[in-house]
Amino acid sequence: MSLATATLLINCPDQRGLVAKIASFIDANGGNILHADQHQDPTANLFLSRVEWQLDGFNLPRDLIDPAFGAIAKPLGATWQLHFSDEVPRMAIWVSRQDHCLLDLLWRNKAGEIPAKIVLIISNHPDLAPIAQQFGIDYHHVPISKDTKAEAEAKQLELLREYQIDLVVLAKYMQILTPGFVAAFPNAINIHHSFLPAFPGANPYQRAHDRGVKVIGATAHYVTQDLDEGPIIEQDVSRVSHRDTVEDLVRKGKDLERVVLARAVRLHLQNRVLVYGNRTVVFE
Amino acid sequence: MSLATATLLINCPDQRGLVAKIASFIDANGGNILHADQHQDPTANLFLSRVEWQLDGFNLPRDLIDPAFGAIAKPLGATWQLHFSDEVPRMAIWVSRQDHCLLDLLWRNKAGEIPAKIVLIISNHPDLAPIAQQFGIDYHHVPISKDTKAEAEAKQLELLREYQIDLVVLAKYMQILTPGFVAAFPNAINIHHSFLPAFPGANPYQRAHDRGVKVIGATAHYVTQDLDEGPIIEQDVSRVSHRDTVEDLVRKGKDLERVVLARAVRLHLQNRVLVYGNRTVVFE
Amino acid sequence: MSLATATLLINCPDQRGLVAKIASFIDANGGNILHADQHQDPTANLFLSRVEWQLDGFNLPRDLIDPAFGAIAKPLGATWQLHFSDEVPRMAIWVSRQDHCLLDLLWRNKAGEIPAKIVLIISNHPDLAPIAQQFGIDYHHVPISKDTKAEAEAKQLELLREYQIDLVVLAKYMQILTPGFVAAFPNAINIHHSFLPAFPGANPYQRAHDRGVKVIGATAHYVTQDLDEGPIIEQDVSRVSHRDTVEDLVRKGKDLERVVLARAVRLHLQNRVLVYGNRTVVFE
Amino acid sequence: MSLATATLLINCPDQRGLVAKIASFIDANGGNILHADQHQDPTANLFLSRVEWQLDGFNLPRDLIDPAFGAIAKPLGATWQLHFSDEVPRMAIWVSRQDHCLLDLLWRNKAGEIPAKIVLIISNHPDLAPIAQQFGIDYHHVPISKDTKAEAEAKQLELLREYQIDLVVLAKYMQILTPGFVAAFPNAINIHHSFLPAFPGANPYQRAHDRGVKVIGATAHYVTQDLDEGPIIEQDVSRVSHRDTVEDLVRKGKDLERVVLARAVRLHLQNRVLVYGNRTVVFE
Repeated sequence: MSLATATLLINCPDQRGLVAKIASFIDANGGNILHADQHQDPTANLFLSRVEWQLDGFNLPRDLIDPAFGAIAKPLGATWQLHFSDEVPRMAIWVSRQDHCLLDLLWRNKAGEIPAKIVLIISNHPDLAPIAQQFGIDYHHVPISKDTKAEAEAKQLELLREYQIDLVVLAKYMQILTPGFVAAFPNAINIHHSFLPAFPGANPYQRAHDRGVKVIGATAHYVTQDLDEGPIIEQDVSRVSHRDTVEDLVRKGKDLERVVLARAVRLHLQNRVLVYGNRTVVFE
Repeated sequence: MSLATATLLINCPDQRGLVAKIASFIDANGGNILHADQHQDPTANLFLSRVEWQLDGFNLPRDLIDPAFGAIAKPLGATWQLHFSDEVPRMAIWVSRQDHCLLDLLWRNKAGEIPAKIVLIISNHPDLAPIAQQFGIDYHHVPISKDTKAEAEAKQLELLREYQIDLVVLAKYMQILTPGFVAAFPNAINIHHSFLPAFPGANPYQRAHDRGVKVIGATAHYVTQDLDEGPIIEQDVSRVSHRDTVEDLVRKGKDLERVVLARAVRLHLQNRVLVYGNRTVVFE
Repeated sequence: MSLATATLLINCPDQRGLVAKIASFIDANGGNILHADQHQDPTANLFLSRVEWQLDGFNLPRDLIDPAFGAIAKPLGATWQLHFSDEVPRMAIWVSRQDHCLLDLLWRNKAGEIPAKIVLIISNHPDLAPIAQQFGIDYHHVPISKDTKAEAEAKQLELLREYQIDLVVLAKYMQILTPGFVAAFPNAINIHHSFLPAFPGANPYQRAHDRGVKVIGATAHYVTQDLDEGPIIEQDVSRVSHRDTVEDLVRKGKDLERVVLARAVRLHLQNRVLVYGNRTVVFE
Repeated sequence: MSLATATLLINCPDQRGLVAKIASFIDANGGNILHADQHQDPTANLFLSRVEWQLDGFNLPRDLIDPAFGAIAKPLGATWQLHFSDEVPRMAIWVSRQDHCLLDLLWRNKAGEIPAKIVLIISNHPDLAPIAQQFGIDYHHVPISKDTKAEAEAKQLELLREYQIDLVVLAKYMQILTPGFVAAFPNAINIHHSFLPAFPGANPYQRAHDRGVKVIGATAHYVTQDLDEGPIIEQDVSRVSHRDTVEDLVRKGKDLERVVLARAVRLHLQNRVLVYGNRTVVFE
């Protein structure tokens, strides 16, 4: 008996009967629904849904599920993704010099919290190679300068193809991806600090400290061509006070970053995140 | 056109096809589902669901919905509740001398956050009568002593009947309800402080302070015959430190109590809470 | 015996021996220190301190404390404020149409949490006059239009003088104060929503909703000539999700605003907030 | 020039002039106070204080500071500890089979967040030896059974002596220490889960799940002879819902445990925690 599940993520113009249609499709083929969640955005007139069911006992072979569902979904104007829980995505982590997010993702992966095969680490610095070695993961040092950016991104894309990467996680990768790169490989998650108010530009922690903020935050989001402005997957905050030095803010920020990034990656890999427009629905 | 909605809360032994059956029932009668949420408890082998749909365009008259759904649900061994959003429940608030939860509920009701008709305030003290008067709500002072408890509860039950009360909210009502009362009127929500660790008995804030706790909490729950042990609807906490006096803990506790109780009452009135065993599922 | 206390808030270039000098001044005059807190900002080379002591048994009469302390503090280049706990500040609340912050402040004041005499409510609308009446507080309706702004602010300043106001709390007062007004009456606290990222301009809740933020916040700050940019006193946040409508965000935002504003006003009135540059130290 | 600091933690019957006496002692000897914090417990009639000052420029040699301060402090009935920031404590971590708290402490130590020399890992299981090896730390496997407990504790105490351990951190060490052991080595910090309400005994996460709690927590405390009842150093909580399985609660609990334990160990090592009675004051 297989414990594998199938998950459909559906995005569709809202109309009557959608829940019934989707559930009946699964039921009619002998599927046992484990989770069904849906959301309506009346402004966008959209219906968004996530349905997960057991493959054991399901009458359709895997390769026929997508076309069979398409026969129902296409007339509705829907777009959808189909995922199987036992087809584990291949993930690359990109880093610069800071190790906190990288280590956290590797440990959680080992502990079974991050359902992906982490097969590749790319960095613009050589510093974190020993961590990759310790976890038995290939590490590629791709240096980047203003002059070599185009060439470096070409090399990075080649690595993503070679390793058949499904998801890139930017775990404090301190370089900006070009629009061209994002167009070529759109499936990437990034983490960055967040403040109330915002402190765009250099030295945000120093400036947040100088401003006496009482709360600091971190935001994980999909990468789009607008830097740090992609659809938000997860956010969290910590309280701080005047007793916190800039170093304390940075330390607390690192704790936030690793937790928020790990949660976002996990939610994505569990196929709980649906993007539409510049926003997400997260079916927790 | 009516904007009213119907909401089904369903509790059923788990089995294949339930989502499809429920959704198809609504769809077949012309209903447009606004929210559908479901949960499975594999240990209890239970399927729990909340479905809300527009009554506008629904083909079944209101009084036939329940029997029609019963024809499907009874063979499945289901129990269910059916609510209509424009049939607003009648609510009583019980208090002793503290006014913070009472005032918060009254203001939120006025602001449209608490969808109920608050028609009755009962207290074992006369102190809060002026607040009732100011909001134009009947106030009944039912004094209680050890010797008069049976008689007082009989009087209270009579008032609940007279005012046709659907829900009682114990907003810092400092008397214990007898099992007999709870059996006669089971639909009540209570609020109490919570600590890590717990400090049962007298002076919990003093003892939490003496113990140097770093977090205090509040829990809203349904009233059962086990005091302070009914199904939990909502909880929240606040950080405290050694700088907080006992009075500060009490003050922060009051802020927690009013927010947690208001959230619980709102969730209940929106028919988002399903109880089974000694626990809840809250479809937020 | 008097339970009254004196509180010194001191701001001084950092140098050796400051804690000893201040404590010895109080000790030498027979004062019993209840709270002593201090902070150093190495970047600004500043020493900031709050000291509170019992007046009972203190040898100096009240009117001599300030000059006596000045004899020590002036040579150090210090600035300071001296407050007596039984000289309760006179407070005005300014509102527009929304009542949640106003009501919260009035109730907390009645419950003893806000140590001020609230003697005046000013609004650019007549709507909230009944609340003022109910609490027995004078309500002045000062309408404002583009053309009458100067004249309205003159009227407002006159009212502040007439009522001998020490502190203005802008409790969702939806008008911008001119730099001239702020120069004439600098002692004001404001509350506004905060988002990660920020949504300056119109309809911030709608835009935060469209952006799918997972956290919303509120910030209480002193009013300066830079709108919404004065020294931050207090901030807090709430989690939200795609299930929250714009109305839900507004509702949760109101809950944040009233709690954050009340905390900030209380901290200010307890003389726990020291401003320097564009930031605060909050001696909690 | 030395950047080292001295820190005094003082516990004393409350009386007039204490802040002045302590600050004057440091000032008179040329010390520059960096942080001075104090707290009064009126119920216990205690004065508690933490003072940290620069050793650079301080006139007293290190070995004379304690006796010199004693000349002032003994007549006041004070007890005190004196710590130097460059005399780094030696720390042992005790584990069983779970690695999350161990790894977190080791990484934070490497990142400079935990100011201790971690020189010894003791476990009743051999499982985590590879982690110790990877970080270059001695690992001692001391198996424990009912019959061998006395002997095992003797062996553990011998190791603590041999490695000159100042602080033991129980990082999910799943054995109970005997009162005899605690008497012989009282300087230990433990971490455990916390719930509202409490679920003492076996399978707390399962029982919290069955009870439908909405919040789970973790508490770090000093070890005393009352199991899980020593003075609390730090606590924190996470929200959970019916959607969280028991495994989710355990996973979220692990995240809480590692953060709360790391914070408590850091606070202790920065000499910010003063214990009196069964409680702490944490000078953050």
